[in-house]
Amino acid sequence: MAGSSSPKLLFRQLLDKESSTFSYLVADLSHPDKPALLIDPVDRLVERDLTLINELGLKLVYAMNTHVHENHVTGTGLLKTMVPGVKSVISKASGAKADVYIGAGDKIAIGNLYLEALATPGHTGGCVTFVTGEGPNQPKPRMAFTGDAVIIRGCGRTDCVGGNSEKLYESVHSKIFTLPEDTLIYPAHDYKGFMVSTVGEEMQFNPRLTKDKETFKTIMSNPVLAYPSLLDVAVSANMVCGLQGLPSAM
Amino acid sequence: MAGSSSPKLLFRQLLDKESSTFSYLVADLSHPDKPALLIDPVDRLVERDLTLINELGLKLVYAMNTHVHENHVTGTGLLKTMVPGVKSVISKASGAKADVYIGAGDKIAIGNLYLEALATPGHTGGCVTFVTGEGPNQPKPRMAFTGDAVIIRGCGRTDCVGGNSEKLYESVHSKIFTLPEDTLIYPAHDYKGFMVSTVGEEMQFNPRLTKDKETFKTIMSNPVLAYPSLLDVAVSANMVCGLQGLPSAM
Repeated sequence: MAGSSSPKLLFRQLLDKESSTFSYLVADLSHPDKPALLIDPVDRLVERDLTLINELGLKLVYAMNTHVHENHVTGTGLLKTMVPGVKSVISKASGAKADVYIGAGDKIAIGNLYLEALATPGHTGGCVTFVTGEGPNQPKPRMAFTGDAVIIRGCGRTDCVGGNSEKLYESVHSKIFTLPEDTLIYPAHDYKGFMVSTVGEEMQFNPRLTKDKETFKTIMSNPVLAYPSLLDVAVSANMVCGLQGLPSAM
Repeated sequence: MAGSSSPKLLFRQLLDKESSTFSYLVADLSHPDKPALLIDPVDRLVERDLTLINELGLKLVYAMNTHVHENHVTGTGLLKTMVPGVKSVISKASGAKADVYIGAGDKIAIGNLYLEALATPGHTGGCVTFVTGEGPNQPKPRMAFTGDAVIIRGCGRTDCVGGNSEKLYESVHSKIFTLPEDTLIYPAHDYKGFMVSTVGEEMQFNPRLTKDKETFKTIMSNPVLAYPSLLDVAVSANMVCGLQGLPSAM
């Protein structure tokens, strides 16, 4: 470990066009190992992600999920089988299997970078937001990987497994909208062609989350979306890191 | 104008999922007007882009094209009709109509930020790469908007209107691969879910452009892609900023 020296962030946003899912690669290039983590990897794209990781000379340490996804199968299980030593990470509250269970305030470090977990339930009961660290050596502005809690000018649905619109509203307003306004929001999905937003922008322009709580609950009780086509397959697979049916499922 | 004071970059990458086209919004927030430019806008998404521009309080000054696109219709003409004062920009060598014609070395400034045009023909005869300025006040690392000259781990085809594989090879090696290795590459398209690369990465891992010139020419003479479905519609519309058939077409 390089002690308190300054990390050098490598950051890549990656897209699965089919499910409109973003995955995020974060690494500390200042550390001799170039340790890396991958947030919300997609099973079908693990090979793409590993090729990039190898080309960049990174060492993948953590494969993390913001929550148990409903619309795609996580790549964390495949990554564990393909890269020895990779640890899967998910919240304890998700009820899913993983190597590392995190709760509110827990930190995941790679080199001299760290992410902190904020409990942001509502889309599911175990949703977390990972936010980059606070301090002179950590990325400025901060970056929040919000999963389905806040998406750009929207939010995740609350009518599926473990959803609760009141909880989602409270999570966003108490945990995400209290971050510095220039904090970059990197969501798990986007359907309009946006890549990034900021806390300040969503506080001002999010058409759902700028409403009062009762109006928000009414909006969320009238979903316009179809039931996710992959929901049954994805949720059961994602409870075991996407390795459903394998004897060593984790 | 704020003289030589430091610009504050606002940067947004925007995606048209249908044609896998990226548009780029660049603005200087340090200038009182928050002047902005949009690179390679798509006609169907002009409303999305203008909503974002308005929310962010930006003043759109330039709507620019890296080249005459073959797979989507440019949004520059619509932007001109919807936002008075916006100037369309394209290379003189493209043969297309615009308000501002640029050539190699020409600069386009917004506030205290500027982009320089590099002539990078080969995909078409009039392709340019826009690269952010050099100097203590300009963004670090530099950002290169390469159009279809370099795409991530690939390049634009050279078998359509004005294409020439030898020219493309020479353009990339003499103009793009001579930029600092940490220069960020933002292409006009991506089909694999990547958003950004660097000059150093493409010099090392681009499966076509790392080859010698003769091998590259052989690769490019065996295209695997179908003729672009929108080619005939798009090219003729894009020669007049996407305003084909309108009396005030520009």
